[in-house]
Amino acid sequence: MNDPAGRSGTVGIRNVRLPDGRAVDVSVGDGVFRRFEPASRNNGDASSLDGAGRLMLPGLVEAHTHLDKTLWGLPWRPNSAGPRLIDYIENERRVRREIAVPVGTRAAGLLEQMISLGSVYVRSHVDVDPEIGLTSVEALLDLRETVRGRCHLDLVAFPQFGMLTNPGTAELVEESLRLGVDTMGGIDPAGIDRDANRHLEFVFGAAVRHGRRIDIHLHDGGDLGVWQIGMIADLTEAHGLTGRVMISHAYCLGTLEPGRLDPLARRLADLGISILTSAPAEGHIPPAATLMAAGVNLCCGSDGVRDSWSPFGTGDMLERAMLLAYRFDWGKDAQLQAALDAASVSGARAIGIENFGLEPGAPADFVLIEAETVGDAIMRRPLDRLVFHRGRRAAGAN
Amino acid sequence: MNDPAGRSGTVGIRNVRLPDGRAVDVSVGDGVFRRFEPASRNNGDASSLDGAGRLMLPGLVEAHTHLDKTLWGLPWRPNSAGPRLIDYIENERRVRREIAVPVGTRAAGLLEQMISLGSVYVRSHVDVDPEIGLTSVEALLDLRETVRGRCHLDLVAFPQFGMLTNPGTAELVEESLRLGVDTMGGIDPAGIDRDANRHLEFVFGAAVRHGRRIDIHLHDGGDLGVWQIGMIADLTEAHGLTGRVMISHAYCLGTLEPGRLDPLARRLADLGISILTSAPAEGHIPPAATLMAAGVNLCCGSDGVRDSWSPFGTGDMLERAMLLAYRFDWGKDAQLQAALDAASVSGARAIGIENFGLEPGAPADFVLIEAETVGDAIMRRPLDRLVFHRGRRAAGAN
Repeated sequence: MNDPAGRSGTVGIRNVRLPDGRAVDVSVGDGVFRRFEPASRNNGDASSLDGAGRLMLPGLVEAHTHLDKTLWGLPWRPNSAGPRLIDYIENERRVRREIAVPVGTRAAGLLEQMISLGSVYVRSHVDVDPEIGLTSVEALLDLRETVRGRCHLDLVAFPQFGMLTNPGTAELVEESLRLGVDTMGGIDPAGIDRDANRHLEFVFGAAVRHGRRIDIHLHDGGDLGVWQIGMIADLTEAHGLTGRVMISHAYCLGTLEPGRLDPLARRLADLGISILTSAPAEGHIPPAATLMAAGVNLCCGSDGVRDSWSPFGTGDMLERAMLLAYRFDWGKDAQLQAALDAASVSGARAIGIENFGLEPGAPADFVLIEAETVGDAIMRRPLDRLVFHRGRRAAGAN
Repeated sequence: MNDPAGRSGTVGIRNVRLPDGRAVDVSVGDGVFRRFEPASRNNGDASSLDGAGRLMLPGLVEAHTHLDKTLWGLPWRPNSAGPRLIDYIENERRVRREIAVPVGTRAAGLLEQMISLGSVYVRSHVDVDPEIGLTSVEALLDLRETVRGRCHLDLVAFPQFGMLTNPGTAELVEESLRLGVDTMGGIDPAGIDRDANRHLEFVFGAAVRHGRRIDIHLHDGGDLGVWQIGMIADLTEAHGLTGRVMISHAYCLGTLEPGRLDPLARRLADLGISILTSAPAEGHIPPAATLMAAGVNLCCGSDGVRDSWSPFGTGDMLERAMLLAYRFDWGKDAQLQAALDAASVSGARAIGIENFGLEPGAPADFVLIEAETVGDAIMRRPLDRLVFHRGRRAAGAN
């Protein structure tokens, strides 16, 4: 079978089915979808790729992971953390010191797994703190270059152990942006960093100084979390960062009654603030359907995959879409499509990829999979996938 | 590679790893595990099967499914049910009338999928009601014979649409037991059948008359459900049916404060009443860890797989173990082992298979899988599995 990958000019993929059921031939030029036409039922241009009736899904988007923390590919390590958050934090530091395999090797192994399963855009947080300095940042910046052309890797400078409370971290975070890290991170401005105002002012200030997007981990629950979402919205508006901010986890949104949720959801939608969930089954999580209905850009990610925090995860964004649907008992086709959107187009929008999807003019990012419908793909999740990034083959063989 | 399946006498499987990490050679005779000995590191008897270092798991047990309802293998059918329970019930009847593929064909397709993934004991409820009569029962009884030797199929006579409120159903249920259905079923004695006492008296009476085990669907929530669990316990005790009763779903157990849960859990443990969960992520479910700690036999099942109620499910009990762990955020090795137990030994105990597991004297039911540990198997769930039932190969090639 020919591969449109290595070619310039316009190439084609014939005989694929779209999520709406249409059988089409697709032409791609310069990494962008050109035309979707009814399948011609002949063999077409011999240089085109035969989709063999496979389902074409938009490229999958891993909108939140921690490649630097993963133990993927290493011998199984029982989770040895004590019960409290502080125990998990101390355990992570202990594990990090004990592991001999370099961060770049571990991260590359997991990223290859993700690409092979269809994720061609991956946002990964990367720890920055005085103990490890910029070691992980440098390894991940190298990896970003290594996979360029097969996967768009968006890196977030992440102060896991606090920014202001961990002296030297803020300077290192800003230095990582100078080195080329894509996105400015933050974490529990109140609960972990103990000074929500100063933390957020630094996060937004650094983002503005370096022209970066923002992605803030917010585990703080209930009213404490909601209060900080309001501050993030205020700062987004004040700094003119509409469409450039994401709040990850935001468990507190799952605790609000409609009278408080609805106006907040409208404000998030107006400011283009994306909400990220890994769809955990225990505890409160953002009410996905309500947020989506209000126009909020809700996307999902694996969070950590097999690391010192949790042994869960495979890096498969179709599995994550299943877990999102499972979490809310979404069984209708429109709901399953929404789950796929959260694992693809919404994630792309969150990290700044506009005009994403199976449309003329969009980047030619797609997955060919032997499944009948979107629901079938999410439920069965066949592992044999042909993965394309901007018109070039990123993974999979025929 | 040789296969111990077709042989009588003692045969061996060499070089496998057990969940506790030991590398062993295993001998099997007359369908029963004989010895587990340290791996000899030579090629052993040429007639033995080379496990090639694979992980040996106990045979998986699907303790609750509805083979007769599945649409597995059919074209994808969008879920078209309205929002209420009654809408789903009416939708199921409509779908059932519209589907041309016979129940035996659909059930066999899903059962093969389950066996290929390692389930060698499967309990399936089978609808019995005046509209379809014993059609499904007869088809599933045939299937039970077809798979005998590869999978133990335990059938439950299931009055989906009510027993006393649906005239003629009780008689058909009892007739199905006469025909050889294994287990007496029931459903929401109060909420659906509107007369908890008469429903339960009939269920227990029929079970006693025919010498059968009991498995009752209980969706009724809160105090209504708990009240019925108390009645089921009373009847179990009164009829001397210790160890022979299962309550499926039992969502109400997830609503009880410890002061009420603990004594009820002790009573369930004392009476050997098993609790079945499919580990749904939405709503209340039985608190698995608390119940297990109290000695309750907690097992799990897929429930419906791709049917008119829900598009979810693959029939993979390792996936179900993952979902159970996911539901409760179980990340420790002991918790992952507990999740596996719920998908294997506990399910076996619930359907009456004593002395199950990887022990001398137990039936030689096992799965060989390329995984490192139980946690790794649950998280990655490789699809390539060698499946054995009572010493004979049920599925998988080397």
